[in-house]
Amino acid sequence: MNSLEISVRRTLSPKALPSSETLGFGKYFTDHMFLASYSTKKGWYDARITPYEPLPLDPGAAVLHYGQALFEGMKAFRHEDGKCVLFRPEFNWQRMCEGAERLCMVAPPKELFIEGIKALIKVDEAWVPKEKGCSLYIRPTLIGTEGFLGVRPSDEYIFFTILSPVSSYFGGGAKPVKIWVEQDYTRACPGGLGSTKAAANYAGSLKAATEAKKKNYAQVLWLDIQREYVEEVGTMNVFFVFDNEIVTPSLEGTILGGGIRNSVIELLKSMNKPVVERKVKLQEIRDGAASGRLKEVFGTGTAAVISPVGELAAKDWNIVINNNEVGPVSKKLYDELTGIQSGQLPDSKNWLLKI
Amino acid sequence: MNSLEISVRRTLSPKALPSSETLGFGKYFTDHMFLASYSTKKGWYDARITPYEPLPLDPGAAVLHYGQALFEGMKAFRHEDGKCVLFRPEFNWQRMCEGAERLCMVAPPKELFIEGIKALIKVDEAWVPKEKGCSLYIRPTLIGTEGFLGVRPSDEYIFFTILSPVSSYFGGGAKPVKIWVEQDYTRACPGGLGSTKAAANYAGSLKAATEAKKKNYAQVLWLDIQREYVEEVGTMNVFFVFDNEIVTPSLEGTILGGGIRNSVIELLKSMNKPVVERKVKLQEIRDGAASGRLKEVFGTGTAAVISPVGELAAKDWNIVINNNEVGPVSKKLYDELTGIQSGQLPDSKNWLLKI
Ligand SMILES: Cc1ncc(COP(=O)(O)O)c(C=O)c1O
Ligand SMILES: Cc1ncc(COP(=O)(O)O)c(C=O)c1O
Repeated sequence: MNSLEISVRRTLSPKALPSSETLGFGKYFTDHMFLASYSTKKGWYDARITPYEPLPLDPGAAVLHYGQALFEGMKAFRHEDGKCVLFRPEFNWQRMCEGAERLCMVAPPKELFIEGIKALIKVDEAWVPKEKGCSLYIRPTLIGTEGFLGVRPSDEYIFFTILSPVSSYFGGGAKPVKIWVEQDYTRACPGGLGSTKAAANYAGSLKAATEAKKKNYAQVLWLDIQREYVEEVGTMNVFFVFDNEIVTPSLEGTILGGGIRNSVIELLKSMNKPVVERKVKLQEIRDGAASGRLKEVFGTGTAAVISPVGELAAKDWNIVINNNEVGPVSKKLYDELTGIQSGQLPDSKNWLLKI
Repeated sequence: MNSLEISVRRTLSPKALPSSETLGFGKYFTDHMFLASYSTKKGWYDARITPYEPLPLDPGAAVLHYGQALFEGMKAFRHEDGKCVLFRPEFNWQRMCEGAERLCMVAPPKELFIEGIKALIKVDEAWVPKEKGCSLYIRPTLIGTEGFLGVRPSDEYIFFTILSPVSSYFGGGAKPVKIWVEQDYTRACPGGLGSTKAAANYAGSLKAATEAKKKNYAQVLWLDIQREYVEEVGTMNVFFVFDNEIVTPSLEGTILGGGIRNSVIELLKSMNKPVVERKVKLQEIRDGAASGRLKEVFGTGTAAVISPVGELAAKDWNIVINNNEVGPVSKKLYDELTGIQSGQLPDSKNWLLKI
């Protein structure tokens, strides 16, 4: 692709905008989507905006048989002046590039990734919610589309982006979530795909999440393969506030390096409350709860924002954290982060990109 | 679905049959495919044979984001009398059911799975090769098709089957293959998806396979997470023939229980050469090669049939097996298995199902 020309084919039957109360997460899609195609011979071609419509895929497509699928999750926000912004899109592009490398896929160039998303949001701008706590969730996705059988990387890809207006991920407002400590199933292991946003990682996680939900837990806390160290939550990274230390598991290849994790580390630095990234033992959490040293636990994620954790439970124990209330560190971070995202606070970190 | 009614829509532009010399593996698809749809509300519905054509998928489909994709690999053979048979289709159906359970998917009922495949092969019967060493590879596939975002199991599925006339998987005839012992990447770990034919498992395997291919190795030998035990090869289970013992890694949840592995165990029993299924240390293989105790190594798989392994190599060592020649056990098993499949030998195990 020489310079980025994006063709636009508009829908003939625009949908009604959903009301902000019914949004929830990922239930509604906007009227259009962005796509670009790749083949080994042609490189990237045919950047286009089309109505949100079925994708015709070869039944032998690599994504359907060999799991070549990688996605991103980011958000756009509408400011008081009506203008829309993207939060840290370069971070997500970078992470997609790293994931593509691991999955032997071809990542879209930065311009295609970011300009495609901007152009799409311009077309569907009416869908970016204005209401506090609401935003436009953006799902860039890369899939292998060549049709063949016999395990090898695809020579053809489609990069596409779809949009969904959302409110809160857990539906429970600011109420702390209950998390199940998973000791039977494994999400990722050394030498695997854990640090990427591969569709493959989520396939393996569904059963643990479903079983946890049946027990009334919102998500699971994944442990390392020896069940000694804490890794991350279903769709969030996790932070622990001890008396005089804030810690989060270090990125050792098995957990996803979240954009909000990274942002929270930056924000805490600016507040002179630096986070230590290190291995965190499950036993340390339990001891901290017993001794009173553990003050807060919270998850971070694009969808989940900052989610205080009120309870951690496993087969034969459970701990209640901060009396099941939102703690001061979680509250402060939530206010700072959403303040910057919504334009209420200055963008001191230069995280916002105008659309 | 009450009783199995399959609608048929025939192609208006049948393709030319490829000549048996050009077949290779998974390059050509037949003229038609079989599909059936599922939704939580309706159950299974609309069993149909259509031309091989693009599948229209919602861009938010679970398979594209959360990896709900599971497949099978089986074969049909043409006998001398012109009739076609399936090899152990119940085994593959059973394995798909077990995989679906793990991935929180809904498996097709047995009748739908087997009768769908039979009906499809009847329509595309001309595509079943007659030539020795050739067969019709069958790819039943189950994917989550509901469009939504937010990690949870899909409420809608499509089960489809596509067909590909094939000759040998490795392209090298009966020449033993060279296998790379993978010590950096991991295919599966306890608590994961290793025992299923989930697309997710192959996503993680591409990089290791690609790097091995660059070094001129056909596939990789996967080790357990501690790199102590031998698990399986890229698309094959693995057997080791020692002086007075034939061994294959036991099914502990991290490796795929292959249909050919199972059949080979049965055949060896009948030959009074029982196989021991147990954990196999990599060191034991190396010691066996050094002492001369290790006589043969071979892989088993639907695509690869019985593939003698001529060399195992790792970063700082390699061993040549049986002078890089096909050994007597591999040869005997290959003859027995392909003899039964092709109808040259009696179907004493009752493995063939007439179409
Ligand atoms: C497994 C997992 N961990 C962590 C996160 C948080 O990442 P981010 O902050 O980039 O949204 C996500 C994202 O949704 C996730 O799926
Ligand atoms: C990872 C893996 N192991 C083993 C096998 C062999 O299984 P089967 O004998 O059922 O073909 C396969 C199948 O292709 C496979 O993909």
